[in-house]
Amino acid sequence: MLRATIDAEVFKEAVDAIAALVSECRLHISAEGMRTRAVDTANVAMVSLELAPAAFEVYEASERALGIDITKLKNIIGMMNRGEKLMLSIPADSQRLNLAFQSYQYSLTLLDPNTIRKDPNAPTLELPGQVVLDGAKLTNAIKAASVVSDKIALGIDPEAKVFFMEAEGDTDNIRLELGHEELHSLTEVKARSLFSLDYLKDMAKTMGRAERIEVSIGVDHPVRFTFEIAGGAGKVIYLLAPRIEAD
Amino acid sequence: MLRATIDAEVFKEAVDAIAALVSECRLHISAEGMRTRAVDTANVAMVSLELAPAAFEVYEASERALGIDITKLKNIIGMMNRGEKLMLSIPADSQRLNLAFQSYQYSLTLLDPNTIRKDPNAPTLELPGQVVLDGAKLTNAIKAASVVSDKIALGIDPEAKVFFMEAEGDTDNIRLELGHEELHSLTEVKARSLFSLDYLKDMAKTMGRAERIEVSIGVDHPVRFTFEIAGGAGKVIYLLAPRIEAD
Amino acid sequence: MLRATIDAEVFKEAVDAIAALVSECRLHISAEGMRTRAVDTANVAMVSLELAPAAFEVYEASERALGIDITKLKNIIGMMNRGEKLMLSIPADSQRLNLAFQSYQYSLTLLDPNTIRKDPNAPTLELPGQVVLDGAKLTNAIKAASVVSDKIALGIDPEAKVFFMEAEGDTDNIRLELGHEELHSLTEVKARSLFSLDYLKDMAKTMGRAERIEVSIGVDHPVRFTFEIAGGAGKVIYLLAPRIEAD
Repeated sequence: MLRATIDAEVFKEAVDAIAALVSECRLHISAEGMRTRAVDTANVAMVSLELAPAAFEVYEASERALGIDITKLKNIIGMMNRGEKLMLSIPADSQRLNLAFQSYQYSLTLLDPNTIRKDPNAPTLELPGQVVLDGAKLTNAIKAASVVSDKIALGIDPEAKVFFMEAEGDTDNIRLELGHEELHSLTEVKARSLFSLDYLKDMAKTMGRAERIEVSIGVDHPVRFTFEIAGGAGKVIYLLAPRIEAD
Repeated sequence: MLRATIDAEVFKEAVDAIAALVSECRLHISAEGMRTRAVDTANVAMVSLELAPAAFEVYEASERALGIDITKLKNIIGMMNRGEKLMLSIPADSQRLNLAFQSYQYSLTLLDPNTIRKDPNAPTLELPGQVVLDGAKLTNAIKAASVVSDKIALGIDPEAKVFFMEAEGDTDNIRLELGHEELHSLTEVKARSLFSLDYLKDMAKTMGRAERIEVSIGVDHPVRFTFEIAGGAGKVIYLLAPRIEAD
Repeated sequence: MLRATIDAEVFKEAVDAIAALVSECRLHISAEGMRTRAVDTANVAMVSLELAPAAFEVYEASERALGIDITKLKNIIGMMNRGEKLMLSIPADSQRLNLAFQSYQYSLTLLDPNTIRKDPNAPTLELPGQVVLDGAKLTNAIKAASVVSDKIALGIDPEAKVFFMEAEGDTDNIRLELGHEELHSLTEVKARSLFSLDYLKDMAKTMGRAERIEVSIGVDHPVRFTFEIAGGAGKVIYLLAPRIEAD
């Protein structure tokens, strides 16, 4: 059972964050809120999302795992306007998610959760490098790197006390260094790993709206991006595996 | 002979309404104004347009049928700006339509009207269901339905006293209900017919600008959309044949 | 050696002017500023550009010919914002051009100038017709002509005392006449030549921003467009060969 009302823009942000990586997901609803964790088909990136009841104006749910066609949901939410109310409901035992907004009634058949990949385990990671910065700064760097290459190195130089991003093309390269004055915080430990820009560009669309993003990195380790949505009532974690440096 | 001056935006609206369905048309000019009626190549949709002399600042015409390349006319009008004056002229016996705006002189060779399909007869239709609503509401519903399907049902539920639109996809469906308070008027008779969204999307581009659209429907019958352009000095009628319900 | 600081928008304007015709160029730097001259691969159009030290906030350079990948430079400059400072530098004997803006460091490997086409000679041309007009008027005419044809005639009618542009399609044509009151100046001599709109459309993107463009034309001769950039500290000349009139 689900009965919830939420600002369309807030729900859109949550759905977009998932849609950046997967086209369907297993959404767990319960009295504690909604959560999902999913890996992309290539097993390179993971998204984990939590939305507390506080993100909703009305929220009532009994425990259940829902199979959601994220792509369809994203299309339908694309029709709503900022500030509009969205009502979500699933009667007990129903196989349909109902969305009501304005005078529209939209009904989406739920997927069988057993046909969707099992929830991945969150890997245990030692990521000693921690940087907190504006989402816009991070996504601008990702865009800039895309102009010269298809991969980007993220790292921390503890001597120079900077968080750096670096991309190399055939005949050109770009480097961005952000010191303490341009960051919210920085732990000064050596870190550097290389990542595919394809994934980062998809994630960047959602991360660009976040006021603060926590970036956790190591040496040739995955990167973890953590940020809030829904005015703090929701949390998104992206995890991205590193690429092998080929030079 | 034709000698006319009109606001570029008003003429654009008229040309766009025709261009939504056909690429060339037979335009009848006379002292009473301009009018055309044309069906699309598949014989599924018809547009009928009238523009009274009051739509023009200057208007003088002797009776004649003109063959117009609507696509070319639309392209050239696309260059004009809102508020600009457009002068139209055809000297007696000339085979060219001259358009003057700003310092430009544009000359379009008229098509031989005999090479264009004969004016279709307006079919006699019994369409007892009548709904009047904002153009924007109608076109939003058409857009929403396009997200889930390629066809839409339009109807009236006399018990619920609503005008409804309904579209069904493979696993999802959307329904919009508008009651008296969201409509300008509604006749409470049973009606429901299914239509192709391809045609409706083309018509919607023009209908979205209209303040009021009169929708006339029946049971498995065509739909007729009637709306004013040129501040009331022009009228457009779209007629669209129903699709067979295949379930 | 090069050490220069310039407004990103000003440098972008200069790079765009070159990029309209060629994808790489030989850029000559010296204490007198920067200059380049290049012809397109088909030998139909030439661009010549000069940027005086006054266009820069800081400018210091020793004489050298640089091989520049204009397309890459254009992409990277596309990331900068209006009003941002761009620092350009090449250490003595270095084969890399460094661009610094915000916290970014971008480094572009220079091309070997010997692999780039020799600087073309500026042809000696007798172009008695001279017209000075707003860049926006010129580019609007180029856009309007593109709707009906792929070539345009530019000319002066000394009797009517107008600068005219004319394009002919299969069944339609467009003509623009600008008299003294719409021009900054006009020499009343007979002139008319036909040009490819493909080239003019590329040039128009840059010329549209110029307040005044000097157009020099003759009878079946090339056209020369001259305009200032960088608030008067830079000058661009486009030269375009005429097309043969095929009727």
